[in-house]
Amino acid sequence: MRIEILGSAAGGGFPQWNCACSNCLAIRKGTFAGKTRSQLQVAISGDGESWFLLNASPDLRVQIEANPCLHPEHAPRHSPIAGVVLTGADLDQVLGLFLLRELQPLQVYATPSVRKIIRDDNSMSGMLHRVPEQVRWNDILPNRIFPLTTASGGNSGIGCEALPLATKFPTYVKPNRVRDLTATEATLGLILECGGRRLAYLPTVPSVNESLLARLDAADVILFDGTFWNDHELIETKASDQTATALGHIPVSETLRRFADVQRPRKIFVHINNTNPILDESRPEFRAVRDAGWEVAEDGWQLEL
Amino acid sequence: MRIEILGSAAGGGFPQWNCACSNCLAIRKGTFAGKTRSQLQVAISGDGESWFLLNASPDLRVQIEANPCLHPEHAPRHSPIAGVVLTGADLDQVLGLFLLRELQPLQVYATPSVRKIIRDDNSMSGMLHRVPEQVRWNDILPNRIFPLTTASGGNSGIGCEALPLATKFPTYVKPNRVRDLTATEATLGLILECGGRRLAYLPTVPSVNESLLARLDAADVILFDGTFWNDHELIETKASDQTATALGHIPVSETLRRFADVQRPRKIFVHINNTNPILDESRPEFRAVRDAGWEVAEDGWQLEL
Repeated sequence: MRIEILGSAAGGGFPQWNCACSNCLAIRKGTFAGKTRSQLQVAISGDGESWFLLNASPDLRVQIEANPCLHPEHAPRHSPIAGVVLTGADLDQVLGLFLLRELQPLQVYATPSVRKIIRDDNSMSGMLHRVPEQVRWNDILPNRIFPLTTASGGNSGIGCEALPLATKFPTYVKPNRVRDLTATEATLGLILECGGRRLAYLPTVPSVNESLLARLDAADVILFDGTFWNDHELIETKASDQTATALGHIPVSETLRRFADVQRPRKIFVHINNTNPILDESRPEFRAVRDAGWEVAEDGWQLEL
Repeated sequence: MRIEILGSAAGGGFPQWNCACSNCLAIRKGTFAGKTRSQLQVAISGDGESWFLLNASPDLRVQIEANPCLHPEHAPRHSPIAGVVLTGADLDQVLGLFLLRELQPLQVYATPSVRKIIRDDNSMSGMLHRVPEQVRWNDILPNRIFPLTTASGGNSGIGCEALPLATKFPTYVKPNRVRDLTATEATLGLILECGGRRLAYLPTVPSVNESLLARLDAADVILFDGTFWNDHELIETKASDQTATALGHIPVSETLRRFADVQRPRKIFVHINNTNPILDESRPEFRAVRDAGWEVAEDGWQLEL
């Protein structure tokens, strides 16, 4: 399995358009010991020809152009992108779907609840259904392994299992709509397997338990929620009055402790918020992450499993 | 008035993610006599401090970062962007609104029909209304001059007049919804005036008549629909079976003829589709445009009126 990390930041990217926190100010000035990052986007392939996007970032247009694997090959219109697997309905996970609107056939994998939010509650999604066989929606049922199939229905060689992780739908989904949805379909982690090797993709993790740690210890690579360093980060930077936990993200500082015994996989933080001190390679928080055996993802990283 | 052309291409940008037309193939190979372009985005300011976006492009995040005028100045959160004027509800005109979701106060100017499509038919727009006074919607009434106001309600010095240009709503708006909307509110051109100087912004123009030509001859700068070179461009490149006219765009080759007597303003084509031969500076179509006194906009152009 080939894995391309096209973007590694949380929603808004780094820097974020309206943010003047110390990280965002310094990177705009060119005085920051770290890199800019676009919003989290990962692409995987079992055969090097058909690619699957894990979620669809708002930065997808630029991310596709930056990566030759994803360029079209045959005139007039073509794409190696066979499909998209959605782990939730947050805007930074789904807006990119609307960027893939130019009549290209695509398989989209989502839970029935996420599909209803996107397809039934947003008229703009009509652009994905202008012609028959444009976007085909495939239901994800949690805790069952399903194959990812190519645009023509062929076998990609990748099997996917979805783990329900959180029960909170995005803020934009109104309470009376939530009542019709299934809470365990709100936020997923994914275990993607190809040729006996496993990638765990968990960008939104509210908490971990022993059972989840055991599953992740059996993976070869973990891409894990690195949104915030500590629980009060947004409050301290005056960017919000909400804790990381209230927003559904286990802080990195706690993750380092909880994963102390998870030694087998390569462990990489993704979905890093612009306020997070681990973006700054000169800071003790960055060193703490590296000393604990974790890495901080950068845009453009390529992995092979 | 300051005018920044942050992006100049039609929907999809240039190159477009799934397009392998001769233009897109050549620019990816580095053999193209022309420049890449992000999706059309213009920003204007009367005082150099408060900025207004004309529509909200899907590439807005990158476009804001590329332009220091639009960077935040005050911690923790701030933006010089005071508002957005919408000329329609096409995805390449409105998706950028969702990128401006981080609780920043914004004035949005739109016709009642466009507001209904975005706000009432798309639950994702809830992210623009998470707190009171986040996005304030202001109704545009065609053929009346209204002032653009800053986020705090102050006078920006810019007056705006909307000209109804087309009566077709985007494809994603279902026929039974269109019945509740007002056709003259579908697609606007804008005349923006500041200190007696006028910018005409018309990215989607199905046809021109003498009355429109007279209005435009009184402008200082025209940013005009440059989507397609001729009526059969998409059919010839096998990208679609629709003519430019059917898609609501007067072809550039016809515009050159119709504007032969419009000599006063500086005339610039924007919203240029990836298939358009005027992107290629080695081609006769590009020379024809320049010989007729028109320019082909590029990302990053700055104008002062």
